[in-house]
Amino acid sequence: MSKEITARSQDYAQWYNDLVLKGGLADYSAVKGCMVIKPYGFALWENMRDVLDRMFKETGHQNAYFPLFIPKSFLSKEADHVEGFAKECAVVTHYRLKNNPDGSGVIVDPDAKLEEELIVRPTSETIIWNTYKDWIQSYRDLPLLVNQWANVVRWEMRTRLFLRTTEFLWQEGHTAHATAEEAIEETRKMLDVYADFVENYMAVPVVKGVKSASERFAGAVDTYCIEALMQDGKALQAGTSHFLGQNFAKAFDVQFSNKENKLEYVWATSWGVSTRLVGALVMAHSDDDGLILPPRIAPLQVVIVPIYKGQDQKDPIDAKVAAIVKELKAAGIRVKYDDSDNARPGWKFAEHEMKGVPVRIAIGSRDLENNVAEVARRDTKTKESLSLDGLAGNIVALLDEIQQNMYNKALAFRNEHITPVDSWEAFERALDEKTGFVAAHWDGTPETEAAIKEKTKATIRCIPLNNPQEAGVCILTGKPSKERVLFARAY
Amino acid sequence: MSKEITARSQDYAQWYNDLVLKGGLADYSAVKGCMVIKPYGFALWENMRDVLDRMFKETGHQNAYFPLFIPKSFLSKEADHVEGFAKECAVVTHYRLKNNPDGSGVIVDPDAKLEEELIVRPTSETIIWNTYKDWIQSYRDLPLLVNQWANVVRWEMRTRLFLRTTEFLWQEGHTAHATAEEAIEETRKMLDVYADFVENYMAVPVVKGVKSASERFAGAVDTYCIEALMQDGKALQAGTSHFLGQNFAKAFDVQFSNKENKLEYVWATSWGVSTRLVGALVMAHSDDDGLILPPRIAPLQVVIVPIYKGQDQKDPIDAKVAAIVKELKAAGIRVKYDDSDNARPGWKFAEHEMKGVPVRIAIGSRDLENNVAEVARRDTKTKESLSLDGLAGNIVALLDEIQQNMYNKALAFRNEHITPVDSWEAFERALDEKTGFVAAHWDGTPETEAAIKEKTKATIRCIPLNNPQEAGVCILTGKPSKERVLFARAY
Repeated sequence: MSKEITARSQDYAQWYNDLVLKGGLADYSAVKGCMVIKPYGFALWENMRDVLDRMFKETGHQNAYFPLFIPKSFLSKEADHVEGFAKECAVVTHYRLKNNPDGSGVIVDPDAKLEEELIVRPTSETIIWNTYKDWIQSYRDLPLLVNQWANVVRWEMRTRLFLRTTEFLWQEGHTAHATAEEAIEETRKMLDVYADFVENYMAVPVVKGVKSASERFAGAVDTYCIEALMQDGKALQAGTSHFLGQNFAKAFDVQFSNKENKLEYVWATSWGVSTRLVGALVMAHSDDDGLILPPRIAPLQVVIVPIYKGQDQKDPIDAKVAAIVKELKAAGIRVKYDDSDNARPGWKFAEHEMKGVPVRIAIGSRDLENNVAEVARRDTKTKESLSLDGLAGNIVALLDEIQQNMYNKALAFRNEHITPVDSWEAFERALDEKTGFVAAHWDGTPETEAAIKEKTKATIRCIPLNNPQEAGVCILTGKPSKERVLFARAY
Repeated sequence: MSKEITARSQDYAQWYNDLVLKGGLADYSAVKGCMVIKPYGFALWENMRDVLDRMFKETGHQNAYFPLFIPKSFLSKEADHVEGFAKECAVVTHYRLKNNPDGSGVIVDPDAKLEEELIVRPTSETIIWNTYKDWIQSYRDLPLLVNQWANVVRWEMRTRLFLRTTEFLWQEGHTAHATAEEAIEETRKMLDVYADFVENYMAVPVVKGVKSASERFAGAVDTYCIEALMQDGKALQAGTSHFLGQNFAKAFDVQFSNKENKLEYVWATSWGVSTRLVGALVMAHSDDDGLILPPRIAPLQVVIVPIYKGQDQKDPIDAKVAAIVKELKAAGIRVKYDDSDNARPGWKFAEHEMKGVPVRIAIGSRDLENNVAEVARRDTKTKESLSLDGLAGNIVALLDEIQQNMYNKALAFRNEHITPVDSWEAFERALDEKTGFVAAHWDGTPETEAAIKEKTKATIRCIPLNNPQEAGVCILTGKPSKERVLFARAY
């Protein structure tokens, strides 16, 4: 079979690439580091986007759209921000091509050089806060709760489909508030929205926490994050929410007159998740036979395959399935009848397994006689025979059960992979043998953090929220510490 | 009042800008030619996008996403295409900034020059057909029906909010077929989808037609279009659907083996509409008091304003309105209760008028006693007193009536502004005095078309579909012609 997948145990990275490519999620493109999101992958992203968009709107946010380009000088206005992004910017310098006089094609027209170069947005804080300057005058204009769905570009040297691409799709929320308290509340609220989405729709458990200073977003006062665990024991940052303080308001001079009619700088947040989540989804759940997609966001939840010899056998199956499809659709289920005759059932089974369709229903002539169908779960690979009476209700319940089971399985795996350690030796052993998160004491300095990273490639993924306070000593320096933080090797 | 709008009769262009800016649809940005789409404008675009997206899916199309960047060499592969787009391309030449040694900020890092420059997509035929080469091998892979929602960039020298911006949002369908007939059928089908959308959702009547050779899309065999008429008598191209023949298949060597196992080049279409439609919507319907939005896509369909003195009067109104809002929402109506107490009713009325909310409901204490509300239509500016009993049903009917009335009004205007002429003198007079479309005979040559444009600034908007065949002579050259074509000055 042409669609063979490399086993996880053999080569985890290749297994992942196989799934993305052969599962029809994405393709490499002619542009280095950029991918093509294929229809099946985009349908998955659309489902994720639609749920998130609804959640954002339910929490009072409105969508808007800001320019793709950012004047180069804007980046410099916030010192940390430019430091963080200058090294990976796509720069537009010209606005026209012309025919090469030698007839060899088109060349950049040297007469069409921009006065000021434009950066393709790596993130939009600067262009947005430059706009907010015009939108915010009084406390009555606050809070301003805006989100943008957009493409962004970061010139990455080492890229991986979905996980790290030069161009990616994301949403970026940018909110403005009258007080620090309110902005922090917003930052935390959106972290909760992300956690809710990733856990309850993607079926991936996350740890909510705050980043250490060296892992903060460039320009943030505090970066909150959700961290997920992949099957190879590496962590993946699934979303971030930043409290930006007054940094961008000061950089772009955005002040408002408060109720006492005094001018104050505005407080800001930003928060984002991206198509990277698709990579997390693939890595968290799938197996050596293909994708395993959680029902709540799977493009297709149920596929029905007829088993027959000749049209005489197929006709009555078609008729019955038409009724079943109608019933399933009425129950809100995304279902497809795969009755194409250019592939055998076995090939179809493998294909739907590869694509991670949560439930497969197979119906043959004998089944029809007995008024049953064979119902197979993708997550457990178990099958059962179900009556065609009341099938829709049972499938709805089964989809819920699959969703829950996928979460429980991922949660059990994650919980088994949080290892508390109290010595350097145990720390290294846990990272190498047990893998996953290692909960260890750290002396709180960036120097120690950097030294640990240098020695082990592990970074502080986060300081969990509501972290138990517990006296201890740093695993590397032996200096006092009052809480454990989560280390891991990460994507 | 700060939000005064320039009258159409005084300065039509300024009237339009006032509406877009003061109606909260968009803002200028710091980047020349790029706009910021504000939340209200974006909500309108979202409604338009969602309807179109549903229509595309219902006609069998799937969404996907292709890279923002196009290698420069790709453009040259289709001769007409590069000729059409090279003059307005944003070009990425570098991928990094660095600190200026003189401390003045960041500069482009000369060591980070791309080997091959990248074009920010002005349209995606080239990158997509380069991808289709990998996706299409056999007739079984056809038709391939893909759509993309994306931002594109064309470096325009003279820009106008929504109508012509350097960056704009759009969708671009790119389909691949086994035969020319099937591709042409697809081209026409999508033109019908566009016409259906613009007429039945935007309430703007259109003429469906085909472009003359000189107005064709760069790389197309035939360009079909829908043309709308604005209130100033200028035409606006609202959407295009291109039959691309085998031009891009040949340029990117995309062949398929047909049922006889012979290799053939694939047939292509592409079709798109953009945020330009928002500009068309504004110009087609609005008046000197603000926007007039058609109910089916208006972000807000109904606004309710309480009329009261003091909280004692407001409390019972609040209670009643809560029930009304619930009833309206249950009927699927997008409604807002505008009970903010920092503006008087008169100010709110003007604001909602400015924003084009189709229906305004005002309720005061006396109304409550009489169990009625004052219901005002934005389109006709008429008011009536309606019983609170069965209000939702009446509002649903009213919204339908407004939608229909807006279309009828625009249609009557458009029909009054199609003037058949048979002489050059009458042609010029019709363009200048009557404005709108002028139906005239033309000898079919690009030279005559160019001469007419040179003399009058009028272009051939289209040769209408199902155009009556009628012998005549060209208004400029007197040469024979067998049908009239539609000329107009255009946006």
